[in-house]
Amino acid sequence: KTIAVLPGDGIGPEVTDAAVKVLQSIAMRYGHTFHLKHAVIGGAAVDQFDNPLPQQTIDVCDASDAILLGAVGGTKWDNNPAHLRPEKGLLNIRKHFDLFANIRPVKAIPALLTSSPLKEEVAKEVDMVIVRELTSGLYFGEPKRRSEKSAVDTLVYTREEIERIVNQAFEIARTRRGKVTSVDKANVLETSKLWREVVEERKAAYPDIEVEHMLVDSAAMKLITNPRTFDVVVTENMFGDILSDEASVITGSLGMLPSASIRSDGFGLYEPVHGSAPDIAGQNKANPSAAILSVAMMFKHSFGLHTEAAAVEQAVMSVLEDGYCTGDLAGSGKRVVSTEQYVTKVIEELE
Amino acid sequence: KTIAVLPGDGIGPEVTDAAVKVLQSIAMRYGHTFHLKHAVIGGAAVDQFDNPLPQQTIDVCDASDAILLGAVGGTKWDNNPAHLRPEKGLLNIRKHFDLFANIRPVKAIPALLTSSPLKEEVAKEVDMVIVRELTSGLYFGEPKRRSEKSAVDTLVYTREEIERIVNQAFEIARTRRGKVTSVDKANVLETSKLWREVVEERKAAYPDIEVEHMLVDSAAMKLITNPRTFDVVVTENMFGDILSDEASVITGSLGMLPSASIRSDGFGLYEPVHGSAPDIAGQNKANPSAAILSVAMMFKHSFGLHTEAAAVEQAVMSVLEDGYCTGDLAGSGKRVVSTEQYVTKVIEELE
Ligand SMILES: CC(C)[C@H](C(=O)O)[C@@H](O)C(=O)O
Ligand SMILES: CC(C)[C@H](C(=O)O)[C@@H](O)C(=O)O
Repeated sequence: KTIAVLPGDGIGPEVTDAAVKVLQSIAMRYGHTFHLKHAVIGGAAVDQFDNPLPQQTIDVCDASDAILLGAVGGTKWDNNPAHLRPEKGLLNIRKHFDLFANIRPVKAIPALLTSSPLKEEVAKEVDMVIVRELTSGLYFGEPKRRSEKSAVDTLVYTREEIERIVNQAFEIARTRRGKVTSVDKANVLETSKLWREVVEERKAAYPDIEVEHMLVDSAAMKLITNPRTFDVVVTENMFGDILSDEASVITGSLGMLPSASIRSDGFGLYEPVHGSAPDIAGQNKANPSAAILSVAMMFKHSFGLHTEAAAVEQAVMSVLEDGYCTGDLAGSGKRVVSTEQYVTKVIEELE
Repeated sequence: KTIAVLPGDGIGPEVTDAAVKVLQSIAMRYGHTFHLKHAVIGGAAVDQFDNPLPQQTIDVCDASDAILLGAVGGTKWDNNPAHLRPEKGLLNIRKHFDLFANIRPVKAIPALLTSSPLKEEVAKEVDMVIVRELTSGLYFGEPKRRSEKSAVDTLVYTREEIERIVNQAFEIARTRRGKVTSVDKANVLETSKLWREVVEERKAAYPDIEVEHMLVDSAAMKLITNPRTFDVVVTENMFGDILSDEASVITGSLGMLPSASIRSDGFGLYEPVHGSAPDIAGQNKANPSAAILSVAMMFKHSFGLHTEAAAVEQAVMSVLEDGYCTGDLAGSGKRVVSTEQYVTKVIEELE
């Protein structure tokens, strides 16, 4: 298997290095060969090629079976024009490779519940997956333009675009507790009415799955008041952006969350949910768990290597339960280690 | 002053009755005359006139200085076609009367913090106002239509629409801690870029106000992890719908929250944030605090009666601090009373 490695900016390179070490450890242990090809994206790519997603990087990804990404962005590029901003690299790579399904699991980790802003009895046992449509809706709809006096963005969805993401959610629910919550704003939006209709249609093909519809404003409340009731949440691009970030903070484990952005054929991009954190970059104190768990998602979704994925997840959980953490997440009663030492611990657990 | 009273559905009539009693108590005590004119809206109006906002109701509002609304909606009308749904009455009245500024204060009430899903140290001292644009954006933009194969909604804003809501936020910030957080998605949306530009322009007229820009996904996180940092939050219609509902649950006092939806000349509609709660309707156990505090907002925003507003707020807070609550919000250590007894307590405090 060939993997494109795009470290990006800030702590991206450190956590990606860590994830690569885990990848290599698994390769050795389970007898796989992973070819790694590095390329630039985001601010690093703007600096080098005046383009947040240069053609060279696209070529490397094209020749790969999956993409491992660190993080993009930093204050350095904050005042750049839109086409020279790091995030544009992310938006472009999603669209270019048709990575329509963004999958973000959020699970309460007992060892980290003390750092949740929610009461422990509310946050405990949270275990959900947010499935966000990633290549359509307000992000890409045309017309999208402005004049001196006004501006317009377009929220457009086709039936096919909705079908494929909804199917994805149903398939994931089958491997879990069998419940799908479809989030929309059907009392106001035409796109949401179509969305709801498609969910109702697809439901017929998944009689084993329980389906509920929820308005986006209610969902924003329920994620806080009763997050445990969610299993799989499926929603359109903009709502998904907001709700998945909201969900990412409820368990206190934002620094641990991986994500996958995949295409129908299993090709996908894997990256931590956390950002590039320029303030702690290069200090060997970023927690690489999210990047490592992103590798586990790659094993599962792109390579079908379920045993290996479970081994990686298990190793990270053991290290967390042993009370280890990195400087960025230090808390009382924790054993603080460097990023490198942390990876060593994870690899020891794997062995 | 003439006030249109639109009780609506579910617990709407009970809490509106309660608010009207407080209104009359204030009238007597402070020597005002309020003319009350009742009219129907929502499901009640659909049942009676096949129209969630009948012309009769519009006429009553037209002849009034402010509108007091209970709540609309209920399962009974859930399967109606869009134009015969209770919410449509709300959307229509906002648009018809150009009620562009939705103002929703969220304040932690010490006596209620135990029912917050957030840890007490996170939720305490929360004191913010969300200012949501209410008559434009995705809710009303054209084209808005669907075909068999796709659907489209349009997010459009003019400079003037943004200017007036931003001005409103700046004015409110002046009466508070002097900080405005403008929420947008300027890294993706053209409307957000225009929005951010207008905020930057208007800032010049308010040199005393601190301004920060925040992306909507970050705001969704920060409302949970650090809600105390917000003073006045201003945002467009759809983001405001999501964020104001998210904010409404963080302090555990959803049942207490009032709202105002106002026009430039001070005319406005005042209503509780909570819904019509059909499950407890007619049982004399709904908490009327939000409706009563909506009257206080009416005094402040439409009538300039600041002393009277403060008296109402003070009376409700005293009753809460004395541990009184209604059946719907019963908790340990609380003194449970009926809706009617609760209002009597509030009126006693006023005297
Ligand atoms: C960086 C930004 C364009 C992006 C998005 O809005 O999709 C990010 O917030 C995310 O969720 O991955
Ligand atoms: C009922 C619905 C149309 C409405 C809205 O989305 O504006 C409600 O959620 C609100 O926030 O007042």
